Amino acid sequence: MDWEIYRTLMKSHLGEALYRHSLGVAETAADLAVRYRVDRHRAYLAGLLHDYGKVFSPAELRCKAEQLGLCLDRVSLEEKGLLHAPVGAALLPVEVGVADTAVIGAVAYHTTGRARMSLLEKVIYLADMIEPGRDFEGVEKLRQSASDDLDRALLAAVDHTIDRVLRRGRLLHPRSVQFRNCLLTSLGKNGG
Amino acid sequence: MDWEIYRTLMKSHLGEALYRHSLGVAETAADLAVRYRVDRHRAYLAGLLHDYGKVFSPAELRCKAEQLGLCLDRVSLEEKGLLHAPVGAALLPVEVGVADTAVIGAVAYHTTGRARMSLLEKVIYLADMIEPGRDFEGVEKLRQSASDDLDRALLAAVDHTIDRVLRRGRLLHPRSVQFRNCLLTSLGKNGG
Repeated sequence: MDWEIYRTLMKSHLGEALYRHSLGVAETAADLAVRYRVDRHRAYLAGLLHDYGKVFSPAELRCKAEQLGLCLDRVSLEEKGLLHAPVGAALLPVEVGVADTAVIGAVAYHTTGRARMSLLEKVIYLADMIEPGRDFEGVEKLRQSASDDLDRALLAAVDHTIDRVLRRGRLLHPRSVQFRNCLLTSLGKNGG
Repeated sequence: MDWEIYRTLMKSHLGEALYRHSLGVAETAADLAVRYRVDRHRAYLAGLLHDYGKVFSPAELRCKAEQLGLCLDRVSLEEKGLLHAPVGAALLPVEVGVADTAVIGAVAYHTTGRARMSLLEKVIYLADMIEPGRDFEGVEKLRQSASDDLDRALLAAVDHTIDRVLRRGRLLHPRSVQFRNCLLTSLGKNGG
């Protein structure tokens, strides 16, 4: 795959700071892909493209969602941190020529997660949290955990995200809760 | 209404500690009912009965749910802290002779909350958190907030609950998130 075309396109589309973050996610995702036996090229590409929708304003995103005929839930439409993911994903075939549904899914769910995520989707969600540019309390522990146990690291990551949403008084997407509940169940943590 | 019959029944059904908690919830709910113009008698009754299901084991609750033909979601069935609410509510007409659907709803949703809760349901949810026997960090502030602004107090209460669920590694019910999102929206806190 000719990465240079995608890198050039994304650098001009995203601007310097967001491009640097996206490169970090791509490289981290590629490393995790090797560790967890996911297609490395898909992981790199999904990482590079994951924030494609982030450069648009909320109004532009809502307009594009309507033009694309997307049926989005109220929380995705109202919460400014969420809409760029599903709209960005839906724009990929139209504006970037990427039609790989696995990559599109990983982009669509990289902020909320969802129940029964694919390995590629999990890798992108986690890479977005731990790429080298991220700096928050606990990120080093999360990086270590990411190379030890994917689901356990994801549980810590989604707990961190939900906690942040609570503290900021933002809407929480029900898919994040379904994602967390699925992880807990598969980790056998729910003593029931 | 002859409260003594219900009090006697619940005292023998619940045992001393849980009965004391239930009386506390009933009295707190009655006070909140006056403050927020909800039927005071219904609030007292719902408070008194809200933990009716709590004396049964998880296995008994699952068995009763099946006998009653309840269709319950996976999280309610698997999370031990949740099942007593919907099953207890469904038992009220059968075992206690209470058929008031507003009271039954308040009992059914007192642990998770839900989207578009009735005032009575909100009063019971909050009374359960702040009755005089409750002792956790922040409860005094919550009690003060409860008499000032119902929805703002409920938001603090559900944030507290979600935070506790995260810290304990338990399953979080999607209804709690819908409840919180509804509160946030109605409080106009979501800047979009």
